[in-house]
Amino acid sequence: MFVTIEGPEGSGKSSVTKEVAARLEKEGFEVVLTREPGGTPIAEQIRNVILDKENTKMDPVTEALLYAASRRQHLVEKVWPLTKEGKIVISDRFIDSSLAYQGGARNLGIDYILELNHFATEGYFPDLTLLFDIEPELGLKRIAANKGREVNRLDLEKIEFHHQVRQTFLDIAHRFPDRFVILDASKSFEEVIEDAYHAIKDRLASCK
Amino acid sequence: MFVTIEGPEGSGKSSVTKEVAARLEKEGFEVVLTREPGGTPIAEQIRNVILDKENTKMDPVTEALLYAASRRQHLVEKVWPLTKEGKIVISDRFIDSSLAYQGGARNLGIDYILELNHFATEGYFPDLTLLFDIEPELGLKRIAANKGREVNRLDLEKIEFHHQVRQTFLDIAHRFPDRFVILDASKSFEEVIEDAYHAIKDRLASCK
Repeated sequence: MFVTIEGPEGSGKSSVTKEVAARLEKEGFEVVLTREPGGTPIAEQIRNVILDKENTKMDPVTEALLYAASRRQHLVEKVWPLTKEGKIVISDRFIDSSLAYQGGARNLGIDYILELNHFATEGYFPDLTLLFDIEPELGLKRIAANKGREVNRLDLEKIEFHHQVRQTFLDIAHRFPDRFVILDASKSFEEVIEDAYHAIKDRLASCK
Repeated sequence: MFVTIEGPEGSGKSSVTKEVAARLEKEGFEVVLTREPGGTPIAEQIRNVILDKENTKMDPVTEALLYAASRRQHLVEKVWPLTKEGKIVISDRFIDSSLAYQGGARNLGIDYILELNHFATEGYFPDLTLLFDIEPELGLKRIAANKGREVNRLDLEKIEFHHQVRQTFLDIAHRFPDRFVILDASKSFEEVIEDAYHAIKDRLASCK
């Protein structure tokens, strides 16, 4: 099963996912955590180009193509082989981040980014996508409080950009209702873990 | 005017182009030499990922997407602004290399690569493309003799790969006859310079 975790930075998605994965492993599931952009050495090299703070001149289409390139490598080298072996692969971000950031906030359009990504994915979609929904102001406040993490190029965008990202995530979730579960990420850490855990367990049950 | 130089490594295309550019500049033309993948700092970062000898696990579609990303950045930041200023921009490789290497030799298909590249180019093509045509065996022999140049990932491909590249270049040239001039790169250095120079001058005359 392939599960993707979407939402803005500061939504707690990575920390929550680690807890949920640990819980699933205790129950005997084989879980692999991965992330986009990145997840394999080549895809991580591409990630470094995308997130480099110096690359302020990057064209939005260049950015979209790099995300698709990284996604392709991640799918071929990691997601497809591991899901085939029966593992639960959970990726921190996937295609919906491209749809929300490049398609929505950078105004390239959802359908344009879907079409571009078809080259990377060949029409493959996750079995389940958890959207960690949160007010951008609260998300950014959490990032600022988390001193251990370096600020990247996307954090530096204006607040309207982050609002546009959030709205597009919600629009995509309504466009693909079978695949999406929307989580209220403003709840307590423990509550969000509980919600995410049950969403995955429900999908596992229905996949059987 | 935008001129692209295509053909295998060892065809002498880069050295010939430098000589031709010097000659055009003496006549008062403003010439900018550039290359793909690369040509701008971001595109050069992408080039490093593509040509890294360690990246043997790179999927052909990932490779094609990275070339397209590099191309997009090169067009937006360099080729389009400079040709708009009336300069002659000469690029060592462009879309036809993707068509020949990824489309032909890696079997992704010419039309597939054209479609993918449409995201990068929006249908923009060079005014003139010089194809430096040479037997792969002769080209590889010249690379081996040129000790100053490091061997890259593409040089290490089998000879059939290079034959497939050559054939595809010729096929593309016949598909786009208005844009292409095929040069016999097995001729002497001086002769090829002469041929390349006249091809560009002829196109400049007809562009006026």
